[in-house]
Amino acid sequence: MGYNVVPLAKLIEQFERMPGIGRKSAQRIAFYVLNMTDSQAKDLCNAISEAHEKIHQCKCCCNLTENELCSVCSNASRDKTTVCVVEDPRDVLAIERTQDYKGTYHVLHGAISPMNGIGPEQLTIKQLLARMDDDEVNEVIMATNPTVEGEATAMYISRLLKPMGVKVTRLAYGVPVGADLEYADEVTLSRAIEGRQLL
Amino acid sequence: MGYNVVPLAKLIEQFERMPGIGRKSAQRIAFYVLNMTDSQAKDLCNAISEAHEKIHQCKCCCNLTENELCSVCSNASRDKTTVCVVEDPRDVLAIERTQDYKGTYHVLHGAISPMNGIGPEQLTIKQLLARMDDDEVNEVIMATNPTVEGEATAMYISRLLKPMGVKVTRLAYGVPVGADLEYADEVTLSRAIEGRQLL
Repeated sequence: MGYNVVPLAKLIEQFERMPGIGRKSAQRIAFYVLNMTDSQAKDLCNAISEAHEKIHQCKCCCNLTENELCSVCSNASRDKTTVCVVEDPRDVLAIERTQDYKGTYHVLHGAISPMNGIGPEQLTIKQLLARMDDDEVNEVIMATNPTVEGEATAMYISRLLKPMGVKVTRLAYGVPVGADLEYADEVTLSRAIEGRQLL
Repeated sequence: MGYNVVPLAKLIEQFERMPGIGRKSAQRIAFYVLNMTDSQAKDLCNAISEAHEKIHQCKCCCNLTENELCSVCSNASRDKTTVCVVEDPRDVLAIERTQDYKGTYHVLHGAISPMNGIGPEQLTIKQLLARMDDDEVNEVIMATNPTVEGEATAMYISRLLKPMGVKVTRLAYGVPVGADLEYADEVTLSRAIEGRQLL
């Protein structure tokens, strides 16, 4: 190409690496960033570096937080006897949005996936087991993703927890609310029939 | 929401403002940035601030560059007698990709749009007129967008240039290569018929 600006190319490359952003979007975002005022650009940089410096894992549930304990763990009104195990901090956000769950969380930061070289020791399973000793936990809800890896992780953890005398449950499978039965896949549908409930 | 991390929320907000990025994508990107190593995050910040500090307008054609003259204007092999007028630096990239055009450019940084409060004085039209005196320009190709604003801008500039004895041309209108005639809109099609050429 006859026209090439190195700092611009570098910026486009940075955005192109981000998830869900292709070449064209990266270009568009790079030009947007160039058109920012200097103070706006500084704000963007600060937000990135600040998030990197301040955010770390909660001492108790391994969720992301800027304090020692996350806002759920440090909230006295949350039910400490129930722990919901999720793969990702985003799953905590999703469950919090329901405003239905009053217990605490445990974030694994991934799922067991031998194909990608992720074993139990890369996850925060050790910290989860340690919580069983310290806290008065009655029930652990496995809310890992309904995928092969998520399933395997849930099975693995439940086998470790059951001998400790903890009740281990799993999120219900079934048809999503608002969906069309016609378009539901067979596995989901047969799980929904299996898990049918009295009306 | 029960769970809130201020630096993370700030970061998501920053990405949400970018063009083409909604709430969900912004969250995904923010978590991607959080998962970067410290040195990767520093690289990202550097790319942003470097682009901001180093990139400015070319003294001649107002395109973005890190030097005094952009790589097109400083290239002795480019034909300085032809100037292609575009709205945006991205349009230069698009035309350069054709590898067909050997002349120089002039970037207006917008189009006349009274609705958005953009008049001729906000664009780099003055600099374009100045080039007519200095350089030995024969032809100016108007390559503004085929929109109402782009058309109006092209007309406005051509009226200023013609009295100076410069040949002013406009990009051809017609059906895009590879498209389906059936789906072409009427205006495009009638322009294509109007501009038909001998085979």
